[in-house]
Amino acid sequence: MSMQDMTKEELLREKEKVQGKYDELKALKLKLNMSRGKPGSDQLDISSGILNNISRDDKMVGEDGMDIRNYGVLEGTSECRRLMADMLETTPDKVVVYGNSSLNVMFDTVARSMTHGVLGSTPWMKLDYNVKFLCPVPGYDRHFAVTEFFGIEMINIPMNDDGPDMDMVEELVNNDKAVKGIWCVPKYSNPTGITYSDEVVKRMAALKPAAGDFRIYWDNAYGIHDLYPGEGDKLLNIMDECEKAGNPDMVYVFGSTSKISLAGSGIAALASSKANIEDIKQKLSFQTIGHDKVNQMRHVKFFGDINGMKEHMKKHAALIRPKFETVLESLEENLGGLGICTWTKPRGGYFISFDTLEGCAKRVVGLCAEAGVVLTGAGATYPYGKDPKDTNIRIAPTFPSVDELKQACEVFVTSVKLASLEKLLND
Amino acid sequence: MSMQDMTKEELLREKEKVQGKYDELKALKLKLNMSRGKPGSDQLDISSGILNNISRDDKMVGEDGMDIRNYGVLEGTSECRRLMADMLETTPDKVVVYGNSSLNVMFDTVARSMTHGVLGSTPWMKLDYNVKFLCPVPGYDRHFAVTEFFGIEMINIPMNDDGPDMDMVEELVNNDKAVKGIWCVPKYSNPTGITYSDEVVKRMAALKPAAGDFRIYWDNAYGIHDLYPGEGDKLLNIMDECEKAGNPDMVYVFGSTSKISLAGSGIAALASSKANIEDIKQKLSFQTIGHDKVNQMRHVKFFGDINGMKEHMKKHAALIRPKFETVLESLEENLGGLGICTWTKPRGGYFISFDTLEGCAKRVVGLCAEAGVVLTGAGATYPYGKDPKDTNIRIAPTFPSVDELKQACEVFVTSVKLASLEKLLND
Repeated sequence: MSMQDMTKEELLREKEKVQGKYDELKALKLKLNMSRGKPGSDQLDISSGILNNISRDDKMVGEDGMDIRNYGVLEGTSECRRLMADMLETTPDKVVVYGNSSLNVMFDTVARSMTHGVLGSTPWMKLDYNVKFLCPVPGYDRHFAVTEFFGIEMINIPMNDDGPDMDMVEELVNNDKAVKGIWCVPKYSNPTGITYSDEVVKRMAALKPAAGDFRIYWDNAYGIHDLYPGEGDKLLNIMDECEKAGNPDMVYVFGSTSKISLAGSGIAALASSKANIEDIKQKLSFQTIGHDKVNQMRHVKFFGDINGMKEHMKKHAALIRPKFETVLESLEENLGGLGICTWTKPRGGYFISFDTLEGCAKRVVGLCAEAGVVLTGAGATYPYGKDPKDTNIRIAPTFPSVDELKQACEVFVTSVKLASLEKLLND
Repeated sequence: MSMQDMTKEELLREKEKVQGKYDELKALKLKLNMSRGKPGSDQLDISSGILNNISRDDKMVGEDGMDIRNYGVLEGTSECRRLMADMLETTPDKVVVYGNSSLNVMFDTVARSMTHGVLGSTPWMKLDYNVKFLCPVPGYDRHFAVTEFFGIEMINIPMNDDGPDMDMVEELVNNDKAVKGIWCVPKYSNPTGITYSDEVVKRMAALKPAAGDFRIYWDNAYGIHDLYPGEGDKLLNIMDECEKAGNPDMVYVFGSTSKISLAGSGIAALASSKANIEDIKQKLSFQTIGHDKVNQMRHVKFFGDINGMKEHMKKHAALIRPKFETVLESLEENLGGLGICTWTKPRGGYFISFDTLEGCAKRVVGLCAEAGVVLTGAGATYPYGKDPKDTNIRIAPTFPSVDELKQACEVFVTSVKLASLEKLLND
């Protein structure tokens, strides 16, 4: 029975029951964490072979003729560029391989635009107006944190089931020269789990920006991260579409192996047009003499090629699919039909997006915390940490074990019920 | 006999002889490189054990309680902070461990000052005047490139045998609020090889900068890089001296294991006051989720502690000392007493600094290049690549083998003689 249809007496009775349950759970003094998209240790174990698969017995000279242990090779070894190009669905000449963090690549890309502009444009810090970025919401907190750090104004764009509201995106990008970027997680979006439709990708690629230095920040973090291998979502290739639309320079594609090999010791990469890549490489040459090439070669040796990498992803799927299913079953069983919430059922990626009744998300996260279950802070999925309706909660099921998840979900669904009952009784 | 004392006829005869020698050498079509401070492959070999000394059989959880393969631990693992603190002669709470490149740490430190200021000061890009850096010359080209990249005005400071001209440094730093930094390689300086005297370090620490956000950029790249272990130069601890002088926040100390373990796969670190470190960590949290902790633990396991690291440095010394001696012997034997050049005799580090007659450095580098020996570009040791007297050449003896060095030196000394004779004949 939907809680929305309950009488005040029924709500009060239900609340008493739920409160009792909550107090029981709280007494267990749990210590669980569903806050961040971290792989579980079982996922790290399947990549342990990468820790030590290069030794003194290996050839130390790569295809570039350089000793992989020494300085140099700014853009990454040829072998690793090829692997990352395949992963990002482009060609090696359009790829720069970085260090262990794609967040760092994105930060650098924004930082460089602030201080040096984009392909010769005025540095954003020297403009006499404030730069703006479009932020599909709910979205990834660390994207928003980067733009906030640089004082960039962020504009919320509603996310639909097929991607951002493109009418609004077109209106803003095509008419406001202060709009210099849009943050996108186009496949298994963080946190909603949806994948941009072909139409959305085509409209994105066909934008006619008022700003020549507008770029799409395409964080394809979950490009091959299917929960149901063989039945994964398909994402249109944005670089191809941009080229077809006459906008070859308009997109930066980011990716990493953080959720493929080892989260803290992976390989990140940037793909973009040759013009962008040349410009970035020239500027990067002031910044470093090159990233860790031994680690690049560990990845090449471990995966062999993109097919090896995709096979490896099936092992991840086998480990985390039961976790997603545990959460989704618990939500369905305990909250289905109550009329107090909705949630997404992603087919890949790392998150489930959950929406409470208006004004309840903070309370739910607070109740969970009191009962020992850490969730991503309510509001984190919005710029400035401000969810205007206070409804969205990001659930990250990958790090805890299935047993821990079952307990955490019990706390979560009980907290959702309690917060919802409080609200319905106060309305 | 000094060439300065030769008659025109003697000079002409000598030139003919030297030209003949040069042509012979050129005909050998050599391909040698003394341009960059890169370790030789024999030096990399002594660290090969670090490539694969962490495996799935090791404990994956460090002292911090975090899985070293996963995300997190922004400031570096406790174990690695301790090692790097010992290397930089400070305490772990004053250290942040970074990725594989100290150049990148320095770049980031300047970049952050441009966009966000220093400990709350106005971002340098928002000032209504141009920021200036003092650059002891000759110095490290990549330092100068970073400041040039950000449009920072660079002021040459003459280097003496005991460090930069401190009268000039004091005059500028204490009176000009636009002076926000000074680049220093205080031990076995790049390229002169000298070590700052205690007095210079004390005067540096006692500066009374007009700018509250002035910092000393103390790149202690060769802190434990003695060629004669046990008889190495001693450098006073700048952080201690700054603290004593009431300037605890005035210095950033940079270092890395690039020339200790593997040049491209080492560990870099920044040491500074707690106030600076807290500020930097807070800002760094927008930039990355953490650096490669597995590589940090490889270093901890490989060296054990600072004593292990220092023992390891003796192996490097044994490999590169003969290379330095080869070059110095060739210079002495072929150019000693000719009155056309001077050079330094460093007791550590990676470079020999060589001075030609005025206006001859470019010509020498050009002659060497024509004969197949690549040197660091003349002028590279000065801001903007402009050596006002065109005299300084940086010799990097570590990368070639001893046999290659002998050949390269033959080309070099012949080129120096030829360029000098040309000059003397034209004067």
